[in-house]
Amino acid sequence: MAILINDSTLRDGQHAVKHQLTVAQLRDYATAVDKTGVAIVEVGHGNGLGASSYQVGRAALSDETMLNTVRECLQNSKMGVFMLPGWGTIVDLSKALSCGADVVRIGTHCTEATLAERHLGWLRDHGAEAHAVLMMSHMATPQQLADQAQLLVEYGAQAVGIMDSAGNLLPQDVTERITAMRRQVDVPLIFHAHNNLGMAVANSVAAAQAGASVIDGCARGFGAGAGNTQLEVLVPVLERLGFNTGIDLYHFLDAAELAARELMVTPPMIDSVGIVSGLAGVFSGFKNPVLSHSASAGVDPRDVFFELGKRQAVAGQEDLIVEVAAQLKRIAL
Amino acid sequence: MAILINDSTLRDGQHAVKHQLTVAQLRDYATAVDKTGVAIVEVGHGNGLGASSYQVGRAALSDETMLNTVRECLQNSKMGVFMLPGWGTIVDLSKALSCGADVVRIGTHCTEATLAERHLGWLRDHGAEAHAVLMMSHMATPQQLADQAQLLVEYGAQAVGIMDSAGNLLPQDVTERITAMRRQVDVPLIFHAHNNLGMAVANSVAAAQAGASVIDGCARGFGAGAGNTQLEVLVPVLERLGFNTGIDLYHFLDAAELAARELMVTPPMIDSVGIVSGLAGVFSGFKNPVLSHSASAGVDPRDVFFELGKRQAVAGQEDLIVEVAAQLKRIAL
Repeated sequence: MAILINDSTLRDGQHAVKHQLTVAQLRDYATAVDKTGVAIVEVGHGNGLGASSYQVGRAALSDETMLNTVRECLQNSKMGVFMLPGWGTIVDLSKALSCGADVVRIGTHCTEATLAERHLGWLRDHGAEAHAVLMMSHMATPQQLADQAQLLVEYGAQAVGIMDSAGNLLPQDVTERITAMRRQVDVPLIFHAHNNLGMAVANSVAAAQAGASVIDGCARGFGAGAGNTQLEVLVPVLERLGFNTGIDLYHFLDAAELAARELMVTPPMIDSVGIVSGLAGVFSGFKNPVLSHSASAGVDPRDVFFELGKRQAVAGQEDLIVEVAAQLKRIAL
Repeated sequence: MAILINDSTLRDGQHAVKHQLTVAQLRDYATAVDKTGVAIVEVGHGNGLGASSYQVGRAALSDETMLNTVRECLQNSKMGVFMLPGWGTIVDLSKALSCGADVVRIGTHCTEATLAERHLGWLRDHGAEAHAVLMMSHMATPQQLADQAQLLVEYGAQAVGIMDSAGNLLPQDVTERITAMRRQVDVPLIFHAHNNLGMAVANSVAAAQAGASVIDGCARGFGAGAGNTQLEVLVPVLERLGFNTGIDLYHFLDAAELAARELMVTPPMIDSVGIVSGLAGVFSGFKNPVLSHSASAGVDPRDVFFELGKRQAVAGQEDLIVEVAAQLKRIAL
């Protein structure tokens, strides 16, 4: 079976360098990876179009500069962009298409597919290839995800999928989720892993075996905290298992070495925070506020993560962190 | 089901620092990990008792100093040692028992169990807890491994298992191997992974699910090249899946942070050489000679790894590296 690799090194990977990739870095990696047979090269701020901000970090470059830079380097791969409605708007989508984006992926929380309806409709009307993904997918059941995926297809998504945004899933969880979606929708399925529990490659293989055909990752697992799926590991593993990625291994290994040398300050590492946030199923963007509020309250940040997980905190509910830290402090006194 | 964790940070992990751990480092980590509930703390030169040498690297400390240092720190965990017959001898076993080793593990190539007969017999006669492992286990079929494991049990091994020394196996391969051994022998089964293909945690889980009950790994995956199984990731994953490791997660995370801070120069990383040697199924100790002989011959070291894999090169056959590099050079001319 054919697997399309969506290389998110220049988008999700940007989290590892606070969205500070330069024109030279974008150009060098895009040029290298375009030779490898990778299907889609995703580019932009880590949180997607329009997300550069004080709250999640300002990118070094504007969306247009990033897209125009990468566009010039790609002759074989498609250029992909990502957008979270709310962070980005229709105006951003329009700009991205003007810059030559081939594939536009819209992301929503796993139970909020309806947020993507207008954007997917707009993309369909403008003839763009529109994909959609459900984030924090450990927080929904396989059937819920299948129902949400069906909505996304009805809105116009030509491929739909799930992101394990917290790095919480184990292979069996992935198999169940992709299988449920596979039964209910006909379009290609997307899978995006994080490596908090050391399962990014295994989960991606489980997704492919259950029928996903667009798999995300980054060179060297580039990404925030525990990192994303390490693509140059995943690709030969998929090939060994009989999948066809269309990727030249040596060229791809060369591109990953370039990324390690030119893009990354340090390689991703699974540290205590990564493990605990993955186990707790907490959005990785909570890391810094959890650490600082825990320090202020004098409580163990690991307890804060597990309590936030129990409360099913989602991105945007950062206020809960202060509340949980204060509550744990009261209990300790 | 209960899983005994064999923490090899102070033995196999030593490969990452060329066997240069100091008394203070051994003491600090052993003291920290003894509080966590880990079953066995393995210590020594990376290649085991008696292996300190020009060929594989001289350790900073003698075997006795390492063992005596760690022995003083352990009140709960057993102290384990590893030995490859040929590198170490009965004299080394005797010294290790005098230093208070509780568990002695003998390793052989996956098809050479007979090499361990005399050592396992000696250990049995001296009342030591004797384990045995089959290395480079991707090079044998499940049935071969089961037959070899049975021999080891007949020689006196109280636990037997396999090492994926090249980091070549995928979860299904592990399942088949452990399942075949489980059918044929009654003693606890051991599994030891390397992370070349990003599968160390997933493979260890597969081993546990197939019936292995002694699982190896190192704090932060400390080890040569792509590293070993990252234990503080594996343990909570096993617990989540219903296994009982008896380990306190927070204490274990603390020990791993200490290891990262005090023992490691850099964290393990899966680079091109790690991936290719894993795919090719080549012993990781071949890395440096492959790189240097490839450079001398002006050939791609990746081609050398794949050719060595085809020829089923095993440790000790370093001469083959020169031959393969020269052959690839002739082909290229």
